[in-house]
Amino acid sequence: MRFPKLFVENPKKPEKDRVVVERDGKVIKFLEEGEEYSGDGKVLYEVIYDDFDEYVLMGTVVCDMLMYYEVGEVKQITYIKKGTKLLEIPAEGYKVYPIVDFGCRVLEGHRLAALQSRKGDIRFVNTPETGIVLFLKEVPSKRENYIFYILPEGKKWD
Amino acid sequence: MRFPKLFVENPKKPEKDRVVVERDGKVIKFLEEGEEYSGDGKVLYEVIYDDFDEYVLMGTVVCDMLMYYEVGEVKQITYIKKGTKLLEIPAEGYKVYPIVDFGCRVLEGHRLAALQSRKGDIRFVNTPETGIVLFLKEVPSKRENYIFYILPEGKKWD
Repeated sequence: MRFPKLFVENPKKPEKDRVVVERDGKVIKFLEEGEEYSGDGKVLYEVIYDDFDEYVLMGTVVCDMLMYYEVGEVKQITYIKKGTKLLEIPAEGYKVYPIVDFGCRVLEGHRLAALQSRKGDIRFVNTPETGIVLFLKEVPSKRENYIFYILPEGKKWD
Repeated sequence: MRFPKLFVENPKKPEKDRVVVERDGKVIKFLEEGEEYSGDGKVLYEVIYDDFDEYVLMGTVVCDMLMYYEVGEVKQITYIKKGTKLLEIPAEGYKVYPIVDFGCRVLEGHRLAALQSRKGDIRFVNTPETGIVLFLKEVPSKRENYIFYILPEGKKWD
């Protein structure tokens, strides 16, 4: 699988898959197609991964979301609660070469992208905080333009 | 929380927490302390995170394991099945400066650590494949010595 699946609580255009979150994330249950659910957990609906930024407003996640990523025999689940603050870090230039991608944990000062000017000079965009890259948005514009959505971990690391 | 919690199927020295995996990872349930469980899922027991490498033999994960990492309002779960092959990449030198840590996704050719020789020369250790750093082991020895355990994603990325 090349991209993670994204599930949200208030989908704009739901796809077919669903996941249930019970007891504040202590139980996570992917429903089968057509499976009934009658518990008191939150049901999250699959949406297109590329629409991630539609569920983030002014740097704040507007509804519970869950990302699911499968690599070989490994499953990775990230459950993000409504109200979580994200860093939005832009990378814009004549040419932009992203260095990290979704799922990458980045340590403070690490490079996110290389920017090349029209003259060929190279500069780097770094992350100001340690965190996890949740999404990389390509913004359509004349110059190349990306936004990194990073979940900051705060200053807990020495 | 500074470190992830590690749960394994066949613990050597179990701690108090448990998690149940049902339907091949479609249901993940963290049990409360003392909670009874009578379903047919696999019960995984918490062990000390630093003992990760005791459950990896010749680059192969020897029992199902689950890592749980909490950052603020975000919960990240990684479920790794028995038999998963990991890359073990050593970094040894007079001084070793790890650049990435557990949870980091690294793209092919990215730097894992900087090595400094006694004369002060700097070299880098890179990852030969794209993957996720699951564990960073510090090996006690005369020179500084680390092993990066990386879950390779294969050549699916352009």
